[in-house]
Formats: sequence, structure tokens, C-alpha cells
Amino acid sequence: MERPRHQGMAKNTSMRWRLPLVCLLWELAMVVLFGVFVRFSPEADAHWEEEKREMNLTSDIENDFYFRYPSFQDVHVMIFVGFGFLMTFLKRYGFGAVGFNFLLAAFGIQWALLMQGWFHSFKNGKILIGVENLINADFCVGSVCIAFGAILGKTSPIQLLVLTLFQVTLFSVNEYILLNLLHVKDAGGSMTIHTFGAYFGLTVTRILYRPNLEQSKDKQGSVYHSDLFAMIGTLYLWMYWPSFNSAISDHGDAQHRAAINTYCSLAACVLTTMAFSSVLQKKGKLDMVHIQNATLAGGVAVGTSAEMMLTPYGSLIVGFISGIVSTVGYVYLTPFLESRLHIQDTCGIHNLHAMPGLIGGIVGAITAAAATEDVYGKEGFIKAFDFTGVYQTRTPSVQGGFQAAGIMVSLLMAFVGGALVGAILKLPVWGDAAAENCFEDDVYWEV
Amino acid sequence: MERPRHQGMAKNTSMRWRLPLVCLLWELAMVVLFGVFVRFSPEADAHWEEEKREMNLTSDIENDFYFRYPSFQDVHVMIFVGFGFLMTFLKRYGFGAVGFNFLLAAFGIQWALLMQGWFHSFKNGKILIGVENLINADFCVGSVCIAFGAILGKTSPIQLLVLTLFQVTLFSVNEYILLNLLHVKDAGGSMTIHTFGAYFGLTVTRILYRPNLEQSKDKQGSVYHSDLFAMIGTLYLWMYWPSFNSAISDHGDAQHRAAINTYCSLAACVLTTMAFSSVLQKKGKLDMVHIQNATLAGGVAVGTSAEMMLTPYGSLIVGFISGIVSTVGYVYLTPFLESRLHIQDTCGIHNLHAMPGLIGGIVGAITAAAATEDVYGKEGFIKAFDFTGVYQTRTPSVQGGFQAAGIMVSLLMAFVGGALVGAILKLPVWGDAAAENCFEDDVYWEV
Amino acid sequence: MERPRHQGMAKNTSMRWRLPLVCLLWELAMVVLFGVFVRFSPEADAHWEEEKREMNLTSDIENDFYFRYPSFQDVHVMIFVGFGFLMTFLKRYGFGAVGFNFLLAAFGIQWALLMQGWFHSFKNGKILIGVENLINADFCVGSVCIAFGAILGKTSPIQLLVLTLFQVTLFSVNEYILLNLLHVKDAGGSMTIHTFGAYFGLTVTRILYRPNLEQSKDKQGSVYHSDLFAMIGTLYLWMYWPSFNSAISDHGDAQHRAAINTYCSLAACVLTTMAFSSVLQKKGKLDMVHIQNATLAGGVAVGTSAEMMLTPYGSLIVGFISGIVSTVGYVYLTPFLESRLHIQDTCGIHNLHAMPGLIGGIVGAITAAAATEDVYGKEGFIKAFDFTGVYQTRTPSVQGGFQAAGIMVSLLMAFVGGALVGAILKLPVWGDAAAENCFEDDVYWEV
Repeated sequence: MERPRHQGMAKNTSMRWRLPLVCLLWELAMVVLFGVFVRFSPEADAHWEEEKREMNLTSDIENDFYFRYPSFQDVHVMIFVGFGFLMTFLKRYGFGAVGFNFLLAAFGIQWALLMQGWFHSFKNGKILIGVENLINADFCVGSVCIAFGAILGKTSPIQLLVLTLFQVTLFSVNEYILLNLLHVKDAGGSMTIHTFGAYFGLTVTRILYRPNLEQSKDKQGSVYHSDLFAMIGTLYLWMYWPSFNSAISDHGDAQHRAAINTYCSLAACVLTTMAFSSVLQKKGKLDMVHIQNATLAGGVAVGTSAEMMLTPYGSLIVGFISGIVSTVGYVYLTPFLESRLHIQDTCGIHNLHAMPGLIGGIVGAITAAAATEDVYGKEGFIKAFDFTGVYQTRTPSVQGGFQAAGIMVSLLMAFVGGALVGAILKLPVWGDAAAENCFEDDVYWEV
Repeated sequence: MERPRHQGMAKNTSMRWRLPLVCLLWELAMVVLFGVFVRFSPEADAHWEEEKREMNLTSDIENDFYFRYPSFQDVHVMIFVGFGFLMTFLKRYGFGAVGFNFLLAAFGIQWALLMQGWFHSFKNGKILIGVENLINADFCVGSVCIAFGAILGKTSPIQLLVLTLFQVTLFSVNEYILLNLLHVKDAGGSMTIHTFGAYFGLTVTRILYRPNLEQSKDKQGSVYHSDLFAMIGTLYLWMYWPSFNSAISDHGDAQHRAAINTYCSLAACVLTTMAFSSVLQKKGKLDMVHIQNATLAGGVAVGTSAEMMLTPYGSLIVGFISGIVSTVGYVYLTPFLESRLHIQDTCGIHNLHAMPGLIGGIVGAITAAAATEDVYGKEGFIKAFDFTGVYQTRTPSVQGGFQAAGIMVSLLMAFVGGALVGAILKLPVWGDAAAENCFEDDVYWEV
Repeated sequence: MERPRHQGMAKNTSMRWRLPLVCLLWELAMVVLFGVFVRFSPEADAHWEEEKREMNLTSDIENDFYFRYPSFQDVHVMIFVGFGFLMTFLKRYGFGAVGFNFLLAAFGIQWALLMQGWFHSFKNGKILIGVENLINADFCVGSVCIAFGAILGKTSPIQLLVLTLFQVTLFSVNEYILLNLLHVKDAGGSMTIHTFGAYFGLTVTRILYRPNLEQSKDKQGSVYHSDLFAMIGTLYLWMYWPSFNSAISDHGDAQHRAAINTYCSLAACVLTTMAFSSVLQKKGKLDMVHIQNATLAGGVAVGTSAEMMLTPYGSLIVGFISGIVSTVGYVYLTPFLESRLHIQDTCGIHNLHAMPGLIGGIVGAITAAAATEDVYGKEGFIKAFDFTGVYQTRTPSVQGGFQAAGIMVSLLMAFVGGALVGAILKLPVWGDAAAENCFEDDVYWEV
């Protein structure tokens, strides 16, 4: 499809050599690094029969695969279909939304297996991977998909790969600080995935500020069917979020509880989103942007606390509030951020991930600080917060303090890291499009 | 998108204050009621370690979560994507189909957790919820989604919320009568979900009869891509129906058997649907309406009997028949119901849920009445029909009689309840659109 | 929608009597054959309680249902949504893609349950079916969906049913030869499903060569939204492929390992596909055809070896190569096959299934030949290759030889079977459309 060009379009957006080179070289690097480092965990290794005897397991069903694989597949769908289709709402950027999300996630999970592996699954010089590593890699990439939402339509695929490389690295460092050094709980990633990912992406898009973006304003909207495609993404994120928040929780009650809390929070969130979407519009009509996004805030906001004894009504309250905050954000905050702070946030991740992520971190800190042996039971209390070894004497209120510190660290990492990566992406070598060609598949795709 | 209005449109369809008020107040009520009543079941509570010892369980894998969570997620997809997208076939009502289904289901599952909880999971003043409650809440809401199909495009979102409130309540009462008082088996809900839900919805739409509906006839059709969106709904319902019918069956063989029977019935149903869709059309061409709907009748029609020893060939026969009945219904019965009985059934739920639901109830009664210790084994026989305690002496033929009574009770509840709720929805305060604006997203959505 | 007809259209494409007759008679045959032969396996039968005692199982969770049902559902989605939507890329053949795939798969799984049942689950005159049979039936039908891709848009629904009848039969014979006579491993079906299915389909389409197909060239392309629909198919195939390749592997480590290997291979494949899609196009733009298809080649190419100790980096290498081979195939080989060999391959299954299937067979043979007791452990080695009974003394290199023989047998069956079935389908009684009406839903569907 040939279309008339503005004379302003002098930028070279051809990917012909740059993109293939990056893809092939980086994939080769993956092959080499996997060859040196990555092996199967005992539960995926053919020596499993011996392992079973050593661990005194009587049945194959005790293999971690059966505890986590269904959740893994749900998370996998969220990353590739959920995020991918959620971003197809733009009328002329569906290929880019689904296709670039596919590209960056496929690269990101490999690099995340390595980065997270070095930090968490490194034994005798090898990274031993099992189903839990796959979930964590998907989680890590989730934070990149979130950041992608802020810059959607404005970057080249190479920029996205560069972003992924750095963000996965920083994510893993941040995650290590939180989980291992601060001994913080964050099973659904309110802090590590959402707060970090969103503020990172917002910082990047601030640095990449495009003053003339109104030149492509006609393409920033949706059409009827692109909104329906986006609802596929929304619903899969919404439906599978209980799996997301419970996927890496402890076996048994913790996984069970995390799923229930998330289910409740998400249900409440839909009601308050609809309410505020209607009331904030002059004619009282519902806005698909809110339905597509703010309904998910409830899942983000129980990310940290879902596996704790948040209780179903606690979850309802969190969902109630985050639906409101998120919808109000879309109506008032996004335009403000764009006009005053020059933060151009294509998908409104500030409303869907940043604020609900902060809420999630805070709720997590409070829920941890409020934990008692009475509510959790003696054993349950220790198990829920891993108060063993050097953490044997940590009290709930101290844990709450560390949880709060986790929020701060995530924010710091996001701002500093985002500024750094934003600066790199600003270099004029990555082949991004001119302002008038943003949000247009034609630039990088055969249409 | 502004469009010319007929002068007839005097109705006030603005939702600006009504919808937000209902959403917020009802959600607040949920928070309070959950706060008073809802807690975690022992398998989701942090005291699980103690529970495990008491129940003599050696492994976390024995937690009900691992028996049912994968099925729960499939059912969840059926309710939100399955029903939601199935109804997107209308050319200008995709937002309403997916969006209002989302709204009513999100509210409905919360209210169902309470209603079903009071009847079935109430202990020491608290409702204790686990994964099975989540499935049952989704099931209950499924019956509302079915009723929604009859009135699709003709009601305001507030009407749908009011409908949900009452229908969930009546569903729970009916379910209690069937499962607890009549001691009837209905794992896949042929009676409780489909028969009740469909006849309830048909009664409501009869009461809400709109004599001038042909004014919006041009919008009652589909366009090419809306039919493809609807096929997403169809296929997810079709593929996951084995999970639906097996989700709350007894652990082990019953879940296994229910999935197999449903798989078989659905496969047969596709063949006879295609056959009759072609033969009933002058030029022999296939009709997407039939493919989208009648192919699912086989799942409905084994809802009661799938966990019984229906056998694979029995399932094929049931699927064979229900595909025919359903397709013939679309061709001959739907126009008849509309012109003679003034039942305007947008999605044809009479063909997809009502008649197959009745078939399902009858097949269940027959299968139960035909049960023998020879076929089930001594233990299996008792386990399959819960012939313990006060039901120790119940014979298969008596059970068959009670099953048949269950159909009658469901029908009665549907007609009486539907008439009542229909009368309430007829009040001129709910903001429904004029006849010429039915089946049009523009009324309630920013388009 | 009425459209002007070329005068060339003299062919009678009416399905009014032919299609219903075939559907009904064949479905009746299924009912009779299931009635005579098919019963529940012990794990799905109501006698399970007794079975449990005999097998010394203490918990219902040991029922095979819980090991395999989540994977089954994923595979089910791949067959019906994955293949169905992958083929919706054509601008005017979405109904045919999704609808005919639905029809042939629904018939095929029934016939496959019988055919595979006679070969593998036949005891005392009965076929005993459980969840593993359902997976295998889906697998078998997968090979028919692949063949459908080659003839998409050019055949009548009756031809597709005839194709299914014969292909399922031949598939089962080939599978029996490979798995039982040659004692070959092929859990993900690189040979039995992909190599056989693809070369079978290519042979059929060669026999059905249409010299005037350029008359419908304008309909062979995609439109913007049809490409997005196709991406739904792509992503579900891609995401669930780890379930596909692990679904029928041994319990425990084998399932676990197969999922990880497939995950890795698919990730690598996306990168090299993107690279070659860009570099092979003058302007360096990405081509949706490649993204939709070649990204999946990595799943095909580890089909045989995924459950072996291929290792994550071995998987990356396989994915790396197959992405390249497949993309290059789309650019150079498909046009060549069409112009020189008269093989009209609508979906390019030669690139997505045939070549990667061959790679998969070869990689499997090499991986098997390279197996050592050191890598697998003494027990793991025997278990992984079933070196028990008469195969107790088979060595890895001999196994590798048999694996290679499996490729040859599959190719032979495909060519001979495909020629035979192609000849049958060429008979002028099946109601296929004229060349100028190919790739057009209007022929068989009410549009």
C-alpha cells in the first residue's frame, strides 16, 4: 500500500541490515551462553528416578511440573496474547503491537533465563532450569511488555530489542535486591514487575519525548474492530491473572489463596471501572479505553499480597480502589502527564501498571506488617514469610518496613535505569520513524 | 460518531448517574457482606499445614486446588471469552456483547459466592471458599450469560445488573432444591444452568416484548468479521466444554469420564449440525448462525449425565440428536416463537440451551434410572450417586424419578422467576433504548 | 451478497444433499462402531476404586487425568483455534478456514479414536479410552489440519471429509509401524504428524493441480484484519506447543523436559524468522506470512527429540536453524514448487511442516544415537527409550538407525497415500469450485 509522504520524512527506517544483524548475533550469543551455562533442573533431567529416591518421593505427580505447568501456560498466554492483543487497539498498528511484542518477548525470555538463572538457580557453574524458571522468565518479560506500552508506535524493533536487553538485566538485579537482600515477598510482582516496569517505561518515553507527535494524531485512535481485538487481550489478562499471581507461590494453600484473592480483586475492579468510566463522561457513555485497561488494575494491586492472608473482602477493597484510581488516571492524569511533563504514554501504563503497582506494594507492606501467628497459624506464619535461618527473628512490622523499602528500590532502579536506557535509545542509529509516521504499520511491515 | 436520529427517540438512555450509583453501591454491599461472611476454606487458609496433618495428607498435591484449578480456568474462559465473544456476531453490538457480559459476570460471581456460600459452604457463621466455590460461581453466572443471550441488544446495563441480582438468587435457590432436597445429580448443569437459565431468559424477553423491533432490523445481522469474532467464542466454548462438565465431579474417574463423554458428544454434534444446516437451506450453503451455536448443543445435552456411565457411544447418540434439534430449532422454531408467541430471542438460546438442556435433564434421568451395580461396581455405584446416609436405600429408578422432578422444578422456577423479574425490568426507569436504537453500541458506548 | 459470475462457472457446487448424506451416514457409522467397540479405560470407569486398590494407588491424584488433562486442553485449542485461525489469513475464506477445519477435526477425532484404538488400546475385543487417547486423536487430526493447509480454498467440504477418512487411516497405520514395529520415539510427532501430514497434503495438492488458479489470485491475499485473526492462530500454536510435545511423554521428568526444550526452540525460532523475513525483502520490511508461520517451525523441529536430553542449548540451535529454513522456504521455495513442480501450497505447509518435520526426524535420530547412560542415568536411559523386553539389547546407534527408518517410512506412506487419495479426490463428484471461485466463502457459505 503506497501512501503519500510528508516531505519531513527524511529518516531512514529501513531495517534490512540492522534488524537481522541484531537478531542473529544476539541469538548466537544465546546459543553460546546456554551451551556454557544452562542445563535441566533435577526434576526435568533424565536422572529424575534417582532424584525421586533421594527426595523420598513416591510418585511422579510430586514433580514440580504438575504443581506449576497449568499456571505457566496461563502466564504464557498473558504475555503473548494478553499483552500483544491488548495493544492492537490502534487502528493501524496491530501488526506492530502483536508482532513486536512477540519479538521482544521471545528474545527476552531467553535472556531472562540466563540473568535470573545466574542470580537464583546457579549451582556448580550451571544454571539448572525447570518450569519455575520458565514462569519467572515470562514474568520478567512482562515488565518489558509493560514498558513497551508507553512507547508503543514510536520506536523501531531494534530499539525494542535494545530496551529488552537492558530492562531484563536491570529487572534481574532489582529482583535480586528485593527477594534476596531485602527478603521481600512479591509473588505477583506488584513491585518487581509492575512498579519497576511501568516507571522504567515512563522514564524512557519521557526521554524520547517527541514534540511533534500530534502530526500522527489521526492514527492514535482506534476503530471498531481494533477495539474488539484489544478486548481479546484484556479478557485473557483478566481471566488468567489469578494464575499469574499464584504461579510461583508455595505449593498448597499459598497458590490456592493467591488465586482466590486475585479473582475477588479483579471482580470488584470491573464494577468501579464501569462506574467511573460512565460518570466521568458528559453523556455517561462507557469508554472502551477504560474497560480494556482499568479493569485489570485489581490484578496488579494484589500482586504482592495475594498469597498472604489478605482475605476475600480485603481483596474486594483493593480492587474497588484500584479500579477508581486507574479510570480517573486515564481521564485526568494521562493528558496532564503529556501536556505538562512531556510523558507520552501510548497505552496509559501509568494508570494500569504504575499507580496500581504502587498500591500493590503498599498493600503488601501493610498486609505483611499486620500478620499474626493467630491468623496464619504457627507453621503457616513461618512458611508464608520464610522466617527461617537468618530471618528467624524478623517480626511482621520489620517485614512491612522491608516491603516498603522494596517499593523505593524498585522506583529508584526504574528512574535511573530508564534514564540511562532512554539516553541510549535516543541515539540516531536505531531507525525509528518520524513523528508523522508513528503508529503506522506501513513503516516496518509489508501491508 | 454522530448519526441521524428518528424523532421517535425520546427515551433517556443516559447512564451517567444511574449506572455508577448501582455499580458503586452494590460493590460496597459486596465488600460489607464479604467482610462479615467470607473466609478461606481450610485448603486455602494459612493453617493448611495443620489441616494436612488432621486429614492425614502427605503431600500438597492433595490440595483440591490441583484437582480443579485447570478446569476452573477453562470454565472462566468460557464465561468471559466464550459467552462474551459468541455474542459479538451482531454488526454493531460487539462492545455491548463483550463489555456488558464482562460487567454482569464480574458482579454475578461475587453475589453467587455469597448466595451459593450460604446454601452450601456455611460453617460457624462463615462462608468458607475454595476453588470449587469459584467454579460454582462461574457456573451460576453462566446461567445469567445464557439469559443475556435472549435480550441481547435490547436492554440497558442497569437492567442487566438487576437481572443478574435476581437470577443469581433464584439460581441458588433452585440449585439448593435440586442438589440438596431432591438429591439430584447435575454436575454439568443441564437443569440448573441451561434449562433454568434459558427458560428464565425466554420468559424475561417475552415480558419485555418490543412490537416495533423491526425498526432496528438492519442492525440485527452480522458482518463478515463479526462472524469471525463470534467463532472465537464458539470454539472456546466447544473446546473447554469437557472441562465445564467435569469441573466439579468427584475426584478421579468421575472427572475423567465426564470429560470423555462431553468430548464425544460435542464431536458428533458438529457433524449433524453441518448436515442439517446445509440440507435446510435451498442452495445447500452452510449458515454461520448454526455453526456458531448448534455445534455446542452436544455439550449442554450431556451436562447431567457426563459423569455417569453414559459411555462414549451413548454420548455420540446424544450429540447426534441435539445437533439436529438445535439446528432445526434455528430454522423453524425461532421465527415461530417470535411471530406467534412474541418471544424475541436474539441469540436463539431456545435452540442452544433450552431444548438441549431439557434433553440433558431427560438423558440424565434415564441414565440414572438405568444404573446397575454391575456397570458401576459396588463402590462406584454408591459413590456416583452419593447413595449414603439417608439416601442409602434409594434405588436407581427412584433416583431417575427425582432427576425428572428436578427438570420440572427448574422449569417452574424459570417461568415464575422470569415473569417476576421481567415485570421489574419493564419499569420505565432503567434507561433502555427505543426500538430503533436496539442492537447499537452507540447508545451506551463512546464509539 | 450477490456478485457477478464469470460464465466459466458451470460446476455444480451445491452441497445440499451430498454433504448432509455424508455427515449423517458417517456419524451413524461412528455410533455403531463406538457401540460395538469403545468403552472407558479403567481410569475413567466407575470401577476405578477397585482398580486403585489393585494398582496400589493411594490417591485419586494418581489418575492419569491429572497428569495429562491440562496438556490435552492445550492441544485441543491448537487443533481447533490454532489451525483454524491460522488459516483465516485469506481475505474471503475465514468461514471456510475455521468452519471446515472444525468439521473435519470433529469427524477425524472420532475416527482416530477407533483406528488408533484398534492398534493401541484394544483389550478383549474392546477399545478402552482415556485422556491419552483423546490427545492422540487430536494429534492424528493435527496431521489432517496440516494437509488441509495445502489445499485450503480449493476443495469442497465433502472432499475434506473424504481426505480425513483416508488420512486418519493411513496415519494410524504409519504410526503403528513406527511406534510398534520400529519401536521409534516420536512424542511430538515430527515424523508421524508433520512429515507424514505435510508430504501427504503436498502430494494431494499436486494431484489436484489447477492450471487456471491465477483466476482467483485477487482472493489469495490477506487484508489487514484477516492477518490479525491469523495471528490468534499463530500465537496459540506457538504458546501451547510445549504442551503438544510433552502431552504424551512419560510422567515426570520426560514431560517436564519436553516442555522446556520446546519453549527454548520456539523462542530462538522467532528471532531468526524475523531476521530473515527482513533481510530477504528489498526494503527490509517484515512479512506477516513469515511471522505467522515460520515462527512455529521450531516447535515442529523438536517434536521427536523434545523428550530426550536434547538440552536447552541444543533446542536453541534447532530453533535457530528451522526459523531460517522455513522463512527462506517461503521466499524462494514456495514459488518454485508452484511454477516448476505444480505444487500449489496455499498455506506453505512445505515450509512450516514438511521441512521442519524432516529436520525434527533427523535431530531425533541423532539425539537418540548420541544417548549415553552417563547423560540419562542407568534407569533414565532404559525408561527414555523403552529399552525393555525384546528391545533390552538395542543400542543408541541402532535406535538412531530405526529413527531414521521412521522418516523414510513416513515419507513413503505420505507419497503413496497422498497419490491414492489425490486420485480419489480428483473424481468429478465432490462439488469443488471452479478456479475463479477458489478462496471464496460465498461458494459454500451464506455470506
